[in-house]
Amino acid sequence: MKVAGFDIGGANTDLAIIDYENDEIKEIKTDFEFLPMWCENDRLGSALIELIEKICPVDEIDAVGISMTAELADAFETKTEGVLDIATTCEKLFECPVGYISLGNVLSLAELVQNPLEVAAANWVATSQIIAEIEKDCIFIDTGSTTTDIIPIKDGKECAKGRTDFERSATGELVYTGTLRTNLTSFVDSVPLKGKEYRVASELFASSADVYTVLGLISEDDYSCNTSDGAGKSKEESARRIARVLCADLDILSKEDILEIADYIHKAQVKQIADALKEVSDREGLDKVVVTGLGKDILCAEAAKSLGLEVKSMGDYYSDDECTVAPAIGTAMMMKNYLK
Amino acid sequence: MKVAGFDIGGANTDLAIIDYENDEIKEIKTDFEFLPMWCENDRLGSALIELIEKICPVDEIDAVGISMTAELADAFETKTEGVLDIATTCEKLFECPVGYISLGNVLSLAELVQNPLEVAAANWVATSQIIAEIEKDCIFIDTGSTTTDIIPIKDGKECAKGRTDFERSATGELVYTGTLRTNLTSFVDSVPLKGKEYRVASELFASSADVYTVLGLISEDDYSCNTSDGAGKSKEESARRIARVLCADLDILSKEDILEIADYIHKAQVKQIADALKEVSDREGLDKVVVTGLGKDILCAEAAKSLGLEVKSMGDYYSDDECTVAPAIGTAMMMKNYLK
Repeated sequence: MKVAGFDIGGANTDLAIIDYENDEIKEIKTDFEFLPMWCENDRLGSALIELIEKICPVDEIDAVGISMTAELADAFETKTEGVLDIATTCEKLFECPVGYISLGNVLSLAELVQNPLEVAAANWVATSQIIAEIEKDCIFIDTGSTTTDIIPIKDGKECAKGRTDFERSATGELVYTGTLRTNLTSFVDSVPLKGKEYRVASELFASSADVYTVLGLISEDDYSCNTSDGAGKSKEESARRIARVLCADLDILSKEDILEIADYIHKAQVKQIADALKEVSDREGLDKVVVTGLGKDILCAEAAKSLGLEVKSMGDYYSDDECTVAPAIGTAMMMKNYLK
Repeated sequence: MKVAGFDIGGANTDLAIIDYENDEIKEIKTDFEFLPMWCENDRLGSALIELIEKICPVDEIDAVGISMTAELADAFETKTEGVLDIATTCEKLFECPVGYISLGNVLSLAELVQNPLEVAAANWVATSQIIAEIEKDCIFIDTGSTTTDIIPIKDGKECAKGRTDFERSATGELVYTGTLRTNLTSFVDSVPLKGKEYRVASELFASSADVYTVLGLISEDDYSCNTSDGAGKSKEESARRIARVLCADLDILSKEDILEIADYIHKAQVKQIADALKEVSDREGLDKVVVTGLGKDILCAEAAKSLGLEVKSMGDYYSDDECTVAPAIGTAMMMKNYLK
């Protein structure tokens, strides 16, 4: 039996297909695509089919689970409008059963339309399913391309104090910062260099992917989003974008300057995550952390270590590709259980 | 004699045409256009001609002065490339003399090519010409759509410690924050509401123009840049964009909530400017301020008052339209003097 799980984000859509044999996982296949929902949401239906077909013929799929965060994209006036638009697109695509991850259980479309907001931004619920199997009492930190979920788990069940994105942004359980797409000026006000403090330019001149590119912490393949200036993804092109954030260019700043700046920005983003993690850890009395997502090593683990917390990685149990699409895997698992 | 002054910014191009009679200013006419140089720099030449023709037949113009900041736009790999590209476009357009505002004097194209960086981001030098006539010893603050210049003037001469944008971002003399285009997440990390502290979403979901629209401090005409979601510029549409910054929508947040959030963000931007102003004021021992630009009342004057500094406004001597394009007027004045 093959179950597909989609995690439809604002910028990336992730897919996991789990092949079960006698209720045991035989194989997990994953893929993802950069699909900016604020401008290309019309392409969602065809993109989902293409993603599946790259891995497996779509008529071999027995069930499809959907989790989403893309309803916040500014193509939609309200989250409700976004959820209904995305869900109706998905429903039309598949002949097999389709279910939607909610803040409680998996919902059918008929149940979803009663309360669309229940499925808004619930993908972290799916991730908690996988993490709870690794550690029954912990906080998991999942830093993706754009956002970071910091979710407490007790006795194998997620117990986030905030439920919606709005609520979680006040409880430390959602930090809108990520490994690739984050505008550097959102978490850095100024950068120290040679004894001076340079205020940053509040444009989208560079994003976090540029910082981790020049530091050699991600590959060009990892850099799956667009660049802010439309140029390439090499170290030099990333360095040029970072220079612009200080109203400078590569005539003014040397390679060593850029590395020093990038290192400072990296530490600032780790601290941003650590501040929220501390809030959750202190409140919940949890001191074990399980890290996942593309930023599991360069951001999550660094943040946890800076607070002296014990760190486990989903990477010790799953492949890097699987960690990157953790919510999609969790979504497929929840869909499988829903079918029982 | 008619002299045109252009201030070619990254986002806006401003024009002032000064009609002189016996070396006295008879009339000033102004206009501006939103011209995003990061994607429409090919349109610069035709835009400059159209702007002039809206006010005055181009063959009546006796000289053209150019100041620029657009060379930082990420359509250009380096500032040098940007300056040369813009200057050669300008030079081809006009048969009358053309001069370029530099950090020192006005330069001809032949002089400019010797050291293109001398004309990069020198428009504040032009503004200082006008302000020095209002107050010989002061700090002027010019908050435009995108950036804020904070420039000390002593004995009628600007004496900024930093010369380039890069240097000025470390001396308090350039704060990359403005009345319209500034991403709210660049200067706000979290927003308090009903006893909770909400972290912001690091997208470009809303800009400063949305805040001043909902607060009724700017008109729809003032809102001359694009909206972040491509929707309209009404109060409700601006409110919707601001809600998204808290991962919320107008189902979740009331009109009163949005006003409270906007008021907080307004104060945060005033403080951002006040911090830099204090740095310059303390260092230079100047306690008089002359404010100008679109944000002269809602941002500059508020920042100066918060520090107990004495405030004069360019608006007491010039019209609001003239204040909005102050660097363009200064550019025309410097070009006139250069011809002597």
